[in-house]
Amino acid sequence: MLIVGERINSSREQITQAVSSGDGVFIQNEAGIQVKAGAHYIDVNAGSLGRDEAKYLQWMIELIQDVTDVPLCIDSPAPRVIESVLPLVKTAPMINSITLEPSRLEPILELVVAYKAKVIGLCQSRESIAKTTGAKVQMATELVEKVTSKGVPLDDLYIDPLVFPVSTDTESALATVNSIDQITKEFPGVHTICGLTNVSYGLPNRKLVNRTFLVGCMAHGLDSVIIDPTDKPLYACLKAALMIMGKDEFCMEYVSAFREGRLELQ
Amino acid sequence: MLIVGERINSSREQITQAVSSGDGVFIQNEAGIQVKAGAHYIDVNAGSLGRDEAKYLQWMIELIQDVTDVPLCIDSPAPRVIESVLPLVKTAPMINSITLEPSRLEPILELVVAYKAKVIGLCQSRESIAKTTGAKVQMATELVEKVTSKGVPLDDLYIDPLVFPVSTDTESALATVNSIDQITKEFPGVHTICGLTNVSYGLPNRKLVNRTFLVGCMAHGLDSVIIDPTDKPLYACLKAALMIMGKDEFCMEYVSAFREGRLELQ
Repeated sequence: MLIVGERINSSREQITQAVSSGDGVFIQNEAGIQVKAGAHYIDVNAGSLGRDEAKYLQWMIELIQDVTDVPLCIDSPAPRVIESVLPLVKTAPMINSITLEPSRLEPILELVVAYKAKVIGLCQSRESIAKTTGAKVQMATELVEKVTSKGVPLDDLYIDPLVFPVSTDTESALATVNSIDQITKEFPGVHTICGLTNVSYGLPNRKLVNRTFLVGCMAHGLDSVIIDPTDKPLYACLKAALMIMGKDEFCMEYVSAFREGRLELQ
Repeated sequence: MLIVGERINSSREQITQAVSSGDGVFIQNEAGIQVKAGAHYIDVNAGSLGRDEAKYLQWMIELIQDVTDVPLCIDSPAPRVIESVLPLVKTAPMINSITLEPSRLEPILELVVAYKAKVIGLCQSRESIAKTTGAKVQMATELVEKVTSKGVPLDDLYIDPLVFPVSTDTESALATVNSIDQITKEFPGVHTICGLTNVSYGLPNRKLVNRTFLVGCMAHGLDSVIIDPTDKPLYACLKAALMIMGKDEFCMEYVSAFREGRLELQ
């Protein structure tokens, strides 16, 4: 299971504060704890910082690379921002993200090719965000076509079918789960990825909903996830789900996580 | 989601003690708390009491029926035990269980027909217990044929694909989950049911494994379960999973469970 650590995101107030006060040590610590907790990529997002997005993204990227070799997940919708930071990146990164919107798809795909990056593709077009299973699979199919037509290996594409809050759309989590199942079967080798927090918006005990959604997605083939890996109960569920789905031979990873005190549920 | 409450089982020491000391109030309380917690059937098992199984089963059945109208799940492998208690049962029960073993299948099926009972069918034959997805689906198919050939409606059959501990068979939970998916699709209208505790045998933090297995099974169509409904974290996962799978319109059941203090995770 590939884990993208989501903590360094300017939508978190602590990150914005660290950026505005120039607290590089805080950013580096956020990277370090995620690496220690098992992140395979560190997401870096400065999206809420407006005009200064590129500047602060560069600042954070350099800081993080000073303390870890774990690759980065460059998180921006803006092709020019991504382009401006890529020359700084030491290890082939993941780019988060493309959609089917031509103004975003085409320039970012060029960068994916040039930097041999991995890329997250959202099931979203210029006209709409895919809601039903059918629409998600259809957009995933188009993403696969667009990306592979540029010579990008299927193994470098991470499809995010997206999810809406179940509080406003009862069927949304189910549509996402079912689309993961279909995409995985229809395009062997492609990856699926998901963020979790949107699904529980507006509900009590959100973390329970997020964790349950993660297990449901993993039961249908999800192989990558954008999470906070320092969230112990969530990490515990992830390890248990891997074991249940037959991906933890002799339960060694699960038992190791237990020995490391990482299966605590509070 | 149909819940069979599993607490009144002589494999629990407290139940054996209550039986041997004639503490009927304890048995009635065990029934009452399960009904209050949402059980749709109350399982009654005296299997560990040897020769006196039928006698103590009768005793417990009468006690439980004095305090609740919730139907019973008569839990015994022995046709003559089941036969001896059925005349006492006030509401059409569930019988737990048949297998494909002829000595068990034929006499118990006659009782199912005579008493218009529901019945749990285990994926187990005289020769073996089904281990792989294929074997589970094959035995489920035979159970469907045997049961419906006697005129029992498919809606009265609850197939339990069975699960082995993942600590000894890494693939077992996955085989169970996949068989639930296939059985549900191949025989629309049939029910699937499962106990949870076996899956986690020999592992640390067993309740986490049980809960995660439940969510995985529900994500593939499990519609009935044998659990302790007073186990709050397990119940919370069940409610969250129902919502994730699109079976909780407007999240009303989930929010109600929250308001009743039933989504607490400790």
